[in-house]
Amino acid sequence: QKLRIAVIPGDGIGKEVMPLGLRCLKAAALKFDLALEFTEFDFASCDYYLKHGDMMPEDWHSTLSAYDAIYFGAVGMPDIVPDHVSLWGSLLKFRREFDQYISLRPCRLLPGIPSPLANPGDIDFWVVRENTEGEYSSIGGKIFEGTEREVVIQETVMTRIGVDRVLNYALNLARSRPKKHLTSATKSNGISITMPYWDERLKALSAEGGYDDLKIDKFHIDILTAWMVLKPSQFDVVVGSNLFGDILSDLGPACTGTIGVAPSGNINPEGKFPSLFEPVHGSAPDIYGKGIANPVGMIWAGQMMLQHFGFKDAADAMMKAIEDVLAEGGSHIITPDMGGSTGTTESLGAAIEKKILGG
Amino acid sequence: QKLRIAVIPGDGIGKEVMPLGLRCLKAAALKFDLALEFTEFDFASCDYYLKHGDMMPEDWHSTLSAYDAIYFGAVGMPDIVPDHVSLWGSLLKFRREFDQYISLRPCRLLPGIPSPLANPGDIDFWVVRENTEGEYSSIGGKIFEGTEREVVIQETVMTRIGVDRVLNYALNLARSRPKKHLTSATKSNGISITMPYWDERLKALSAEGGYDDLKIDKFHIDILTAWMVLKPSQFDVVVGSNLFGDILSDLGPACTGTIGVAPSGNINPEGKFPSLFEPVHGSAPDIYGKGIANPVGMIWAGQMMLQHFGFKDAADAMMKAIEDVLAEGGSHIITPDMGGSTGTTESLGAAIEKKILGG
Ligand SMILES: CC(C)[C@H](C(=O)O)[C@@H](O)C(=O)O
Ligand SMILES: CC(C)[C@H](C(=O)O)[C@@H](O)C(=O)O
Repeated sequence: QKLRIAVIPGDGIGKEVMPLGLRCLKAAALKFDLALEFTEFDFASCDYYLKHGDMMPEDWHSTLSAYDAIYFGAVGMPDIVPDHVSLWGSLLKFRREFDQYISLRPCRLLPGIPSPLANPGDIDFWVVRENTEGEYSSIGGKIFEGTEREVVIQETVMTRIGVDRVLNYALNLARSRPKKHLTSATKSNGISITMPYWDERLKALSAEGGYDDLKIDKFHIDILTAWMVLKPSQFDVVVGSNLFGDILSDLGPACTGTIGVAPSGNINPEGKFPSLFEPVHGSAPDIYGKGIANPVGMIWAGQMMLQHFGFKDAADAMMKAIEDVLAEGGSHIITPDMGGSTGTTESLGAAIEKKILGG
Repeated sequence: QKLRIAVIPGDGIGKEVMPLGLRCLKAAALKFDLALEFTEFDFASCDYYLKHGDMMPEDWHSTLSAYDAIYFGAVGMPDIVPDHVSLWGSLLKFRREFDQYISLRPCRLLPGIPSPLANPGDIDFWVVRENTEGEYSSIGGKIFEGTEREVVIQETVMTRIGVDRVLNYALNLARSRPKKHLTSATKSNGISITMPYWDERLKALSAEGGYDDLKIDKFHIDILTAWMVLKPSQFDVVVGSNLFGDILSDLGPACTGTIGVAPSGNINPEGKFPSLFEPVHGSAPDIYGKGIANPVGMIWAGQMMLQHFGFKDAADAMMKAIEDVLAEGGSHIITPDMGGSTGTTESLGAAIEKKILGG
């Protein structure tokens, strides 16, 4: 089975971490005799936008549809292109138009990384985020522009199909885990139409599906963020809307020390369209060019990609390599966001690559 | 100057912490010779709802308009009345119909309270939350109900008037503080209509108002929650929409150890309507009846009320009493959420009352 992978480094540190991600994937391919084929694209970047006036060529959909997966760095240069232009012209288009309706984001305290929490406990949960609708709609507008009466409206849209499929995915994921515990993020006390609907569908689906073996609870998003800090070890699978999942999947990794390690799968479970794998961190213009971006999020995203396509041994080896290198530490290896001093993208990525190769 | 205060204990632990809040306010009144007049109401509670089929009597608006302030416990008994019914029928009505458009929430690491953060630093910031519009709209609905085509829509509404007044309030508050630093919570990369508008208004107002003396920055809400955990000492004044302010004002206090201490002012700055002072925590049905609810949030809310009406000495004394009692500690005094063992609502509240009286 050959895996055809479209490679899109994008902007900022996306361009810095991508080479290390690729080296680690190639190391795994060599070691486990996998057929990975990489094709790099320069679009879905602000550089491309500046040249062409658009984030992507017109035929991006058919071009990328020929691939099994997209391996994606980061997009955004807010000083040059407004974020909502660059993101809605690329990443958010992929998620929507390739129907990558599951955003899957692991949150785990890895060895050797100092947590900001005094007693982090055993942090090990998945965030399952709805990835195509909800608060990230493009419907709405402005009226009475420029006057005192100005009103801006944006609609949150939830469909039965969209809500059910992400909740079902999360229910099944929770069932596959030893703790069998699903937590739903809501805000039905304040956001009085969409959020009660979300709660209602969870109740209906868990009853219909006979999920009596699961522990299912729900928290309002405000207190849920508080619990992430006070007792993150209580979570197993956390499901949330597009916005709530976005928030929890930055906050969770922050509790494990840095969002620089967190990966993310944007998954079209039916495989009708390519799934996209990327680090959770963005393009980070503030540190771009220094060579100190943490490559682990990018490498771990590659690991998730192999896992997704069933290359279990290779995925396990990549994960173990990441863990071993972090556990060994060394301030000349580890990037500054994890407490390192002279460690760089290159030093850390190369150490993981070497470990995958069996060094 | 006599202060006429409407007292609404509400539900759950609201009923448990309110008596201690009142005792501390009465102690301050005695000590500083303030004329505080308290009138208690049983509405805006689920008990009232069960008896009358409504959260409040029809004439609630005129009844409460006769008071300078509302001292409020908490509302909600989700097992009996759905949260969106009880909240939209009481607290959220007050905020909206009394035009309490500023929700002001201090977040401070108090002495003696163990923070969940390993290195919390000096946490001392204000959350300024828009309190009447935004994501908490009641506009929207459902179509194709019960079918596969079901769609639920909820509108986020931001008005020029609503956005400008909260941003101006926050700009001025930041200017009054030594660090002069304002952070705006946004999500303009994903929520592409309302959030860019929020950013745009901040930019316009800070330029028009000549706030060159301020340091103004903005973070997307996802990374902002991460920074709350990684480095909360960087914040001074944080301004956010109704939803973002809600989230940050639970997460911030969690970083200071417990949301049980956090107070909140729902302020109508013009004094046209009564302002409302309440703890940030809710009715907490899970611990109701045990007598262990933390009374500090309620007492501190009383302190904010005195401060708001210019009773500076009394307010300072209340704050000092809270801090002194927490610093002295004692596991038979301090409630369990702050690391106490046999401490109760009564023991902690009484200790603060005594301290205010000069004991
Ligand atoms: C109870 C709920 C509606 C309320 C809110 O979301 O505003 C609460 O969380 C708060 O922060 O005051
Ligand atoms: C860049 C931004 C639009 C994106 C999001 O909000 O989804 C990012 O924060 C993420 O989590 O992938």
